[in-house]
Amino acid sequence: MSVPAVKALAFDVFGTVVDWRGGIIREGTALGAAKVLDVDWGRFADAWRAQYRPNMDRVMSGDLPWTRLDELHRMTLDKLLPEFGAGGLTEAEKVHLNTAWHRLEPWPDAVEGLARLRQRYTLVSLSNANVALLVDMAKYGGLPWDCVLSAEFAHAYKPDPRVYHLVGDLLDLPRAQVMMVAAHQGDLHAARGEGLRTGFVPRPQADGPHRPRDLTPDPSFDVVATDFVDFAEQMGA
Amino acid sequence: MSVPAVKALAFDVFGTVVDWRGGIIREGTALGAAKVLDVDWGRFADAWRAQYRPNMDRVMSGDLPWTRLDELHRMTLDKLLPEFGAGGLTEAEKVHLNTAWHRLEPWPDAVEGLARLRQRYTLVSLSNANVALLVDMAKYGGLPWDCVLSAEFAHAYKPDPRVYHLVGDLLDLPRAQVMMVAAHQGDLHAARGEGLRTGFVPRPQADGPHRPRDLTPDPSFDVVATDFVDFAEQMGA
Repeated sequence: MSVPAVKALAFDVFGTVVDWRGGIIREGTALGAAKVLDVDWGRFADAWRAQYRPNMDRVMSGDLPWTRLDELHRMTLDKLLPEFGAGGLTEAEKVHLNTAWHRLEPWPDAVEGLARLRQRYTLVSLSNANVALLVDMAKYGGLPWDCVLSAEFAHAYKPDPRVYHLVGDLLDLPRAQVMMVAAHQGDLHAARGEGLRTGFVPRPQADGPHRPRDLTPDPSFDVVATDFVDFAEQMGA
Repeated sequence: MSVPAVKALAFDVFGTVVDWRGGIIREGTALGAAKVLDVDWGRFADAWRAQYRPNMDRVMSGDLPWTRLDELHRMTLDKLLPEFGAGGLTEAEKVHLNTAWHRLEPWPDAVEGLARLRQRYTLVSLSNANVALLVDMAKYGGLPWDCVLSAEFAHAYKPDPRVYHLVGDLLDLPRAQVMMVAAHQGDLHAARGEGLRTGFVPRPQADGPHRPRDLTPDPSFDVVATDFVDFAEQMGA
């Protein structure tokens, strides 16, 4: 499908660009081996991620003041470590584990697809992760963003409309010239509600085997692609 | 000089990274040739730039609400064109000329120096230009920012302290681990006042022959370099 009017692509990051679950398991396993911990890191990763939405909801409801994702991750980590029998980590080890989210690997097709897309479009991240996390992740994985955009600039978390508005406002583009690209349909529905175009890349493995998602694309999405190379192809890049 | 604690480098852009005056003259000359205009584009560029500081001062004094640099440039352009006998441009031509600031060439050493520095440091722009301008300029000139930061995120113009605070706040770094790099000493004095380290690259040609600047480095600057390759060398990159 051709979407000629689109000038900028805004990418969700966790699950869409990078494999958050594989990365947390990898980093946890390495730490667990060094510290001789008996932790099921898949279950640990799922438990950590399970608090992602509830924590952001606490911020958006006003129960918490604006709090960056790094800090929300740390709140959850401090709660989970003793529950998983890993309460004895040093502060430096906890800091290191918390920044595992800064060192997630891109999906195998992601960098190639982004490099192609970047020749034709302006590429921005549009993530609930804070700027420091996104900058570290981009350096770690070689993600070629033209501009790192984050919920942090809106002091609001997706699906709050203010986050989607950032792209057109800051790039000085009409929203119809911006396409949100995500593996999660709720992100795309919210983006479409604010006038953005939508690109769905389902990433069936993104959330692991224990959190099934609806992978059947909403027929209203502008583009549905199997991966970023297929997406680049469909976008004429 | 070794500055081992520095993690991030924040770059002024106009004059420091790109040749604003040469770019405006080049674009004006091309437009003038196409439209058969008799304009001294060097004088035009100087007159345009001369309103840069006064316009930002109007914003910071509250005389104007927050206004992006693209719009401040346009206000000045609309005033200057008739004064220079070029009032007959079409709206599309005016828009194109106003975005000449998005298409400025990097100094010959800039991209090589930045590429080297990026392997060791996080590189951000820290300019009074708005985000759209900086993103276009980076794509045009191949500037490898890890993150585009702009006065627009603070809704304040340098030398307002809030602009310098953006870097440490958003990258989650102490200010002493951030170095401001600029061709203008006032920018560096303001940055140092907020706890940032300072790198001076004088760029004697930056403001053209008619606006002499003090090029004698303040001895308090941490690093003084002849260009970005020399700067990379001194920074161990």
